[in-house]
Amino acid sequence: MNMAEKQELSIGIFDSGVGGLTVMKQLMNHLPHERLIYFGDTARMPYGEKSQNTIIRYAIDNAIFLMEQNIKLLVVACNTASAFAKEKLKRIFKIPIVDVIEPGAEKAIQVTRNGRIAVLGTKGTILSGAYQTEIQKKSSGCAVFSVACPLLASLIEEKFIQHPATRLIVKEYLTPFLDKGIDTVLLGCTHYPLIKHLIQEEWGPNVTVVDSASTCAEKVASILQEKEELSKASFLPEYKFFVSDDPKKFRSIGEEFLGSSIQEVLQASASLSH
Amino acid sequence: MNMAEKQELSIGIFDSGVGGLTVMKQLMNHLPHERLIYFGDTARMPYGEKSQNTIIRYAIDNAIFLMEQNIKLLVVACNTASAFAKEKLKRIFKIPIVDVIEPGAEKAIQVTRNGRIAVLGTKGTILSGAYQTEIQKKSSGCAVFSVACPLLASLIEEKFIQHPATRLIVKEYLTPFLDKGIDTVLLGCTHYPLIKHLIQEEWGPNVTVVDSASTCAEKVASILQEKEELSKASFLPEYKFFVSDDPKKFRSIGEEFLGSSIQEVLQASASLSH
Repeated sequence: MNMAEKQELSIGIFDSGVGGLTVMKQLMNHLPHERLIYFGDTARMPYGEKSQNTIIRYAIDNAIFLMEQNIKLLVVACNTASAFAKEKLKRIFKIPIVDVIEPGAEKAIQVTRNGRIAVLGTKGTILSGAYQTEIQKKSSGCAVFSVACPLLASLIEEKFIQHPATRLIVKEYLTPFLDKGIDTVLLGCTHYPLIKHLIQEEWGPNVTVVDSASTCAEKVASILQEKEELSKASFLPEYKFFVSDDPKKFRSIGEEFLGSSIQEVLQASASLSH
Repeated sequence: MNMAEKQELSIGIFDSGVGGLTVMKQLMNHLPHERLIYFGDTARMPYGEKSQNTIIRYAIDNAIFLMEQNIKLLVVACNTASAFAKEKLKRIFKIPIVDVIEPGAEKAIQVTRNGRIAVLGTKGTILSGAYQTEIQKKSSGCAVFSVACPLLASLIEEKFIQHPATRLIVKEYLTPFLDKGIDTVLLGCTHYPLIKHLIQEEWGPNVTVVDSASTCAEKVASILQEKEELSKASFLPEYKFFVSDDPKKFRSIGEEFLGSSIQEVLQASASLSH
């Protein structure tokens, strides 16, 4: 394949479900000429409470499904999969792989003034220690507070975004950390931007709440630029959506995450792709 | 295989996760001499919000895994799988298959005085209409009210059993049905017996809250008796537990559902068994 052909390949993105669409949204903003292919593993979601070996198996399935669509770069737009499977994917596959943990950690370090950072995530992401390791590798003086929030992703998928029960559960998870002098809160799950207002209200105006989606998109842009693989197309690109469970359910909730309409969602089983 | 050998085979039970242990508990009570093998498909749970085709595929995987352990009868101890996959399993496999929908429907019909029954379940179970069909087949005069409760199973798995947020969410789901003159509430999800007290409190003392676990165990006993396949063993039987994700997590929450201790849990991937 020559360079011109390579430039016009797609960027692949996977997540356990709809959450990664918050990352896709930023890719659409930052790289408006790139073709994007999204895969949501909705038949096996959620990933947050499952074990490392299971997540690695699923991440490899998903990556292979996207490789088969001819992609030039893979975005792991799921924090749990990034935490557990990124190293493995990088060892196995040839194309560049961008996760959401490293950009999230970079963003938090840029923003913090006192070096006291809270990371909110699923049980899997928190137990992996991936954010803690990444932040301390880049800025060893930081104190990282890890906050497991297992029910939040389900509540968001059920659209309980304004519900008092969600506020109670957010309070339950955050209360032990409110007096720790934290100034930066990193949303370590791609669902959480949808309840950013609740988290900000609970923690008060003196903390900055950040997520990794836009830093992740910037990272993708810089890698493609460096490799001279940015698309040269001037027309509006194609966006494709695949899921492993019923496409109908994905579309209605997915549009809320993506912030724009989704034309068509196709069903494809990652686990049966090889 | 002769009759004596067949009698000493195990009963297989599967669920998406730990919920089916409430059914296993009743099997242990009603059939104290039977060997039982439990499989929880924890790597792909929950089933409640997934589509029929996906659930059928998973149910067949799980059934085959248990068949390979040599079982004489299969219990589908998951309401969503019972609703979506029971007919398919009965068409494919030779051994008797007992689900939880039919016994649950029978129990509700026995108990109701005014024929007004509410069924609580996951989205999948409710959308399938399986309870409605089954109740009206057996007692056509009954009015069935279907109440989808998608977040309850997650809250129970997170042990939010006494939490005010769970009470708020229960209230949210039940309120539209409290003035319908219902006298019987059927718990159409194997997780819900753990919050039976909340549901009873919300609905008040005039309704009877029932679940399908003990009726299901009675049905298993009567099928084995009729086929002369009840175990003749006099010693205490063996109980085996398999899951598709990490066994550690299953054990701690599983003991709450089973109401007794779990010695050992082994990992086995249903999806890779054939």
